Amino acid sequence: MTRVGIIGATGYTGMELVRILHNHPKAELTYATSRRLSGQAIADVMPHLYNAQDLVLAGFDAKDAASAAELLFVCLPHGESMNIAADLYKRGKKVIDLSADFRLRDPEVFGKWYGEHTQPELLSEAVYGLPELHREEIGDATLIANPGCYPVSVILALMPLLEEGLVSLDSIVADSKSGVSGAGREPKQNLHFPEVYSNFSAYSIAGTHRHICEMEQELGDICQGEVKLTFTPHLIPVSRGILTSIYARPSDDMNESSLVELYRKRYSVEPFVTVRDLNEALPGLKDVCGTNQCILAPRYDERTDMVVVISVLDNLVKGAAGLAVHNMNLMFGFDENAGLTDLPLYP
Amino acid sequence: MTRVGIIGATGYTGMELVRILHNHPKAELTYATSRRLSGQAIADVMPHLYNAQDLVLAGFDAKDAASAAELLFVCLPHGESMNIAADLYKRGKKVIDLSADFRLRDPEVFGKWYGEHTQPELLSEAVYGLPELHREEIGDATLIANPGCYPVSVILALMPLLEEGLVSLDSIVADSKSGVSGAGREPKQNLHFPEVYSNFSAYSIAGTHRHICEMEQELGDICQGEVKLTFTPHLIPVSRGILTSIYARPSDDMNESSLVELYRKRYSVEPFVTVRDLNEALPGLKDVCGTNQCILAPRYDERTDMVVVISVLDNLVKGAAGLAVHNMNLMFGFDENAGLTDLPLYP
Amino acid sequence: MTRVGIIGATGYTGMELVRILHNHPKAELTYATSRRLSGQAIADVMPHLYNAQDLVLAGFDAKDAASAAELLFVCLPHGESMNIAADLYKRGKKVIDLSADFRLRDPEVFGKWYGEHTQPELLSEAVYGLPELHREEIGDATLIANPGCYPVSVILALMPLLEEGLVSLDSIVADSKSGVSGAGREPKQNLHFPEVYSNFSAYSIAGTHRHICEMEQELGDICQGEVKLTFTPHLIPVSRGILTSIYARPSDDMNESSLVELYRKRYSVEPFVTVRDLNEALPGLKDVCGTNQCILAPRYDERTDMVVVISVLDNLVKGAAGLAVHNMNLMFGFDENAGLTDLPLYP
Amino acid sequence: MTRVGIIGATGYTGMELVRILHNHPKAELTYATSRRLSGQAIADVMPHLYNAQDLVLAGFDAKDAASAAELLFVCLPHGESMNIAADLYKRGKKVIDLSADFRLRDPEVFGKWYGEHTQPELLSEAVYGLPELHREEIGDATLIANPGCYPVSVILALMPLLEEGLVSLDSIVADSKSGVSGAGREPKQNLHFPEVYSNFSAYSIAGTHRHICEMEQELGDICQGEVKLTFTPHLIPVSRGILTSIYARPSDDMNESSLVELYRKRYSVEPFVTVRDLNEALPGLKDVCGTNQCILAPRYDERTDMVVVISVLDNLVKGAAGLAVHNMNLMFGFDENAGLTDLPLYP
Repeated sequence: MTRVGIIGATGYTGMELVRILHNHPKAELTYATSRRLSGQAIADVMPHLYNAQDLVLAGFDAKDAASAAELLFVCLPHGESMNIAADLYKRGKKVIDLSADFRLRDPEVFGKWYGEHTQPELLSEAVYGLPELHREEIGDATLIANPGCYPVSVILALMPLLEEGLVSLDSIVADSKSGVSGAGREPKQNLHFPEVYSNFSAYSIAGTHRHICEMEQELGDICQGEVKLTFTPHLIPVSRGILTSIYARPSDDMNESSLVELYRKRYSVEPFVTVRDLNEALPGLKDVCGTNQCILAPRYDERTDMVVVISVLDNLVKGAAGLAVHNMNLMFGFDENAGLTDLPLYP
Repeated sequence: MTRVGIIGATGYTGMELVRILHNHPKAELTYATSRRLSGQAIADVMPHLYNAQDLVLAGFDAKDAASAAELLFVCLPHGESMNIAADLYKRGKKVIDLSADFRLRDPEVFGKWYGEHTQPELLSEAVYGLPELHREEIGDATLIANPGCYPVSVILALMPLLEEGLVSLDSIVADSKSGVSGAGREPKQNLHFPEVYSNFSAYSIAGTHRHICEMEQELGDICQGEVKLTFTPHLIPVSRGILTSIYARPSDDMNESSLVELYRKRYSVEPFVTVRDLNEALPGLKDVCGTNQCILAPRYDERTDMVVVISVLDNLVKGAAGLAVHNMNLMFGFDENAGLTDLPLYP
Repeated sequence: MTRVGIIGATGYTGMELVRILHNHPKAELTYATSRRLSGQAIADVMPHLYNAQDLVLAGFDAKDAASAAELLFVCLPHGESMNIAADLYKRGKKVIDLSADFRLRDPEVFGKWYGEHTQPELLSEAVYGLPELHREEIGDATLIANPGCYPVSVILALMPLLEEGLVSLDSIVADSKSGVSGAGREPKQNLHFPEVYSNFSAYSIAGTHRHICEMEQELGDICQGEVKLTFTPHLIPVSRGILTSIYARPSDDMNESSLVELYRKRYSVEPFVTVRDLNEALPGLKDVCGTNQCILAPRYDERTDMVVVISVLDNLVKGAAGLAVHNMNLMFGFDENAGLTDLPLYP
Repeated sequence: MTRVGIIGATGYTGMELVRILHNHPKAELTYATSRRLSGQAIADVMPHLYNAQDLVLAGFDAKDAASAAELLFVCLPHGESMNIAADLYKRGKKVIDLSADFRLRDPEVFGKWYGEHTQPELLSEAVYGLPELHREEIGDATLIANPGCYPVSVILALMPLLEEGLVSLDSIVADSKSGVSGAGREPKQNLHFPEVYSNFSAYSIAGTHRHICEMEQELGDICQGEVKLTFTPHLIPVSRGILTSIYARPSDDMNESSLVELYRKRYSVEPFVTVRDLNEALPGLKDVCGTNQCILAPRYDERTDMVVVISVLDNLVKGAAGLAVHNMNLMFGFDENAGLTDLPLYP
């Protein structure tokens, strides 16, 4: 068993890693940290993890981490991750960082959206951990920047269109709707249960959400051009899941069957992307709840000459912890599906 | 008190009319029908209406209806409404029809989306009941076609832009999200509680939803041009409310402050449209729950040169029954606010 | 118009008072305070209250409060209320206190559950504001202790049984389930949206919830005996409403029809208590959402010789703000129904 | 791999079996039926099961079933199951029946609650499939009556008390709250999404729910006495989970620490029952969502001399499909945990 650790195990992505690793055939959780709850057993502070109770939460110590595990998942807030990840990286450990700290290649762009980067030299070392885009580099990587949840949802939905140059680059709109776990585990007034229940709202609209720069970087790479993305995130009153509705104007004649065929072909070898055919139902959040799947339904509105793509995934799995385990599987040469074979919990 | 009746009182819009009329200072419910439940008291079949219990549901009879009430709200499914509304209209009654049967002026367009119309001559008599657009005609009308819930949400959000010719007509996307009461009260597999809870999905995408023709008719009138609308409805796992996110490309230079100012000016006299300023919070469904308000937040994404408008309303009130009561108030010269002064139920 | 004020207007009960008073025909809100948000308009800090926007929140000042209003609703946390209410009371103002500070007559019992009382001499002045029990004293009162939400739900359900001496006093179990707004508006980890959604749990069980002493005081008065109540509160993942299931062993032969008849008779004159007959549906939270009704369904399980009573109400209305307005109506001789005629928002 | 089949695979328990069996190391799904959807692939009619798509749904045929599988899970409605299960049993197949058809030993009692039994001679052959009570008989059984979801929740919560004779048998109250999937997948008016959302209600109260006879049979066996259970089921507006609050009067002096110790000891060897200690948090539905665990928190209210036990489980797993797989594991000598090691999906 490969020994792995989680830095920041009591947030939602950390918890979710504990859950997935619990059934992983090749990896074993041997180290987990929490700033506030160190010294307590995981199962005592997160009682739903009663079957994973042996492990005691530590305060973070780089030397301990390095000796306890071969790979570390870093699940800390943006800005807090970079130094810790760098320390572990320099000790020769494999690191999968789930924050935004290593997702942007350009320190200036990083600085503009997130503030100054303290480890700019590592930005070029990090591989953007989206296997459908960078499978080979991930296999060879030591430091993985695990993508953001919205970017996975959006990039997978647009990749075939941009690879083939089928849409006008300044026309793309991504209207995303996310469950509330995407906003983290910290209690806040606007995330207090009675405020969210029965509610639905948009936030960080009109070009202000930080995931935009990450999406534009990767989308630009794919099409070798400049993508300007209109992105609108919304909060759905559920715990998990992201559904994105993508709109893009074709740059040339479009045919709906060919469009779907393109997607099916592009993703035919991918274990974690499913394409819904024209005669199949549109996907909903429940189709992916608890799984590492992204389901795409590409469609064409000929009345208005607009491509519409529906994309769903579980933000904590394919949008975070499951994707991180997929990256680990690639880094260690495990079966790509290892630990990721669950069907969705339905209903 | 003006005597009014409801044809089809046990669906969600019928029920909601009973609720609103209960506190109306000028109108009194004197007649209500139900096909399946005639002969029973309203409060017996809908126990939440325990304070409105005197009225016994009748089977529909045009003569009875005409003698019992001066105005009839017709809350029947599309296709079933037209003959009944026509009958009442011909008996000299005022009619507010909440189905789609009189919303389209062109019988051919109606035929294409809904099937043949049996009362095509009445289509030109009917006034599209959106007071912000047709206040005066409504005051003089005998037959009102009460707008669909999505169209109210979309038209109010686009009206100022189209009136001023500020956006490119072929660029408009309306991404709408609706609570489940919008799908009606009939039990269905896909609306069964466990299937919808924790779920979120799109439906009738890529130009297939019937409300498109209604929106394009009214939007085209406003701008004296042809609007082709890309419309994507989604189902939010809540009971009430619609939030629409509108995207449109400016046809010329755009300025965010002027944009908001335009909206505030356009709607300053409107009692049921509120515009959120740039320093104000984006609206959510709870801000309008149970009220007749539509709240708009027009914004401009200068990175991508795209106008983004967020629009929220309660689909059963401003999107149906409250709007119908507003129309009644105009038809009878009541205070526009009569019966519609409730603040939202929050949280 | 009678001028009234709210001390602590930005919590859930304060907000709900603003909502109800907005449509009250005899009372006008002329004063409202908030510690953290003073100086801002109500509608700016609680944007859902956009139609009530003239009033600016003040920091609390007893003299200002006394000159601005004839009646003050005090919506502060337990312990913070007593001195402020006492101050207003001594200035000759009518006070309705929505905290627990004046609900217990015995300062020792208060001390045991809540800590020392600073105004013990006022405890005997305060009237427990449950009109179904103390209508006349409320009419003459200057200081009202507005009951807790659970106690209203439980006391109304048990009152007829205890008045008639029909059940064994040591056998009573109250299994209560409350929406999350009952836990207040302060964000907390265990009330964070993703933690509560899809969840359901009990809390403060086995004799540890503070509302027990209040219930036992009033129930003991009713039956002139000592009641020991087994009380179990639970959290339902919804915003509003309490449903209590009561169990009690009959002290003598019981007959289900007579039981229901007893309840109907006892509450026949009460505008805000409804009794569901044997052939009527059991009530649910939606039957009372947004209203001042308590609905009771008394039943008898002859297999086990146990009385079972189902009791539902909206914790923010009949369990707090609506009840407070009812008390105000009685204190000022208004129509009891004034401001409280809304039907439930359904669905 | 042991070949197993599911009769009635498109209801909620059937679906859940497909999900659990998908990751089972020893069993393989080789046969599945659906009356309405035969001829279609599982993944086509239940698109969330996209990874289990090879199997085509058949119409039921006893001979085909018997040749395709060694064990059949029968997931049909009560009354429809008995003949099919009998047929398979007579063909020498192992059968786990998830309906109520074989849960009662006495045909007369069955007749009273469910109607006449057509296979009364099989009632004595069937083993009640609760491993914590009948582990050995299950290992030797050919026909298993898989318990109802409420009975599992109630029996496990009471078993230690009744085995030790600690409570008065006529005093027991079980107040149960269930997610809506427990009511099945058939769309109904009262289970239509908008009717249940934000709602909470009791149903089948005062001795009328069919699970009572099953609970009283097993509880009576445990204590060798007659148990009369006051049982009140409620509907929680969530998809999954049951929480039961049990009340019972001690027959002698009770001590809370000893009480918890008794439970811990009784269940120490059980892989799927967890007991929460006095210093541990009370369990909620999310602690068991998607898992085969039942968590118990036994407590004692010394003020009222009442034992209170909180019991939570996932109605579709420990209350149905997971329990059935546990029974299969025992029947075939597999590891008891096989296929049942998932941690809960949280949040």
